[in-house]
Amino acid sequence: MASQIEPIQRMAAQLARLPGIGQKTAQRLAYFIVSLPEDQVHELAAAIWQGRKAVRYCAVCGNFTENERCSICENDERHNGQLCVVRDPRDVAALERMQDYRGVYHVLGGTLSPMNGIGPEDLRIRELLSRLSTEDITEVILATNPDIEGEATATYIARLIKPLGVKVTRIAHGVPVGSDLEYADEVTLAKALEGRREV
Amino acid sequence: MASQIEPIQRMAAQLARLPGIGQKTAQRLAYFIVSLPEDQVHELAAAIWQGRKAVRYCAVCGNFTENERCSICENDERHNGQLCVVRDPRDVAALERMQDYRGVYHVLGGTLSPMNGIGPEDLRIRELLSRLSTEDITEVILATNPDIEGEATATYIARLIKPLGVKVTRIAHGVPVGSDLEYADEVTLAKALEGRREV
Repeated sequence: MASQIEPIQRMAAQLARLPGIGQKTAQRLAYFIVSLPEDQVHELAAAIWQGRKAVRYCAVCGNFTENERCSICENDERHNGQLCVVRDPRDVAALERMQDYRGVYHVLGGTLSPMNGIGPEDLRIRELLSRLSTEDITEVILATNPDIEGEATATYIARLIKPLGVKVTRIAHGVPVGSDLEYADEVTLAKALEGRREV
Repeated sequence: MASQIEPIQRMAAQLARLPGIGQKTAQRLAYFIVSLPEDQVHELAAAIWQGRKAVRYCAVCGNFTENERCSICENDERHNGQLCVVRDPRDVAALERMQDYRGVYHVLGGTLSPMNGIGPEDLRIRELLSRLSTEDITEVILATNPDIEGEATATYIARLIKPLGVKVTRIAHGVPVGSDLEYADEVTLAKALEGRREV
């Protein structure tokens, strides 16, 4: 079309590859970005590119870090014997926001998904086993998502490491705090009942 | 916080400056971008920065273009005497999608907004008057948004250019096609009635 300005279309096409950003939003963002002062756009592009270049995976736990090891693994106080297994670095950030957990993490880099051809060898499970044999771990907390793939991954890892004599726990399922029972699904309600505690 | 990785936070902060992208979405996008292969992130950052650098304002109409004049102004067939006044380049793109309008455009670069200190001298109104005196324009179509500022701007321009003897029209207000009368607001309904036509 006559009015389609190619650099804007190219920008919109790139933005539309981001999760949750559709064609229309990408178009709107591209027009907005093009109307910004050059220095602001440079800051944005530089933050994206330099951010990507600065970040790598922690050699120990697989979390994002700027250094060889992430700040959690580097912190001696965090090595309290607890190791929390999560799917990806975003989950580490979520758990850290809680400011309650004081152990270390192990990032799997995904969850088992036979449908998508993701098997145990595609996750950082070998690295987990190696850590259990070298580090002083007393409890492995399986904090993968409470969905089918997360459950399957947790079950798989639990079976694998229980024989090693380490305590293996799974995060609790139940109704989220602040939510409404009426809107909870049956499986969640069943889990909430099953996991009930005396008050 | 220990787990906050600075380059990711910087990226998220930049993304959060974009319209419609809140802190949480920006955070999610930043984590996603950091996990992408380097070449993909480079493509994204380059499309943003090079896109901004490649695009400037058409010297005639104020639309975005890669060249001195935009492709619409360059197209002799589009100079049919009709000139459509819009707020910004995005509106040009919206009207062009219709593939129906065959005249040229004039982009104001905003709308009158005394509250925000935007007066006639901040818009490309002087350029509009200059075009009316040099180009062969028979009809000016005021296509600013049907909101308070858009209406005020249209009214202001209409008063200014009617004395020049040029035909001035305003796009029709009414109920959007495919919408439901039940959900239309009173002002829109009143405008729709007022603008009714014999069938």
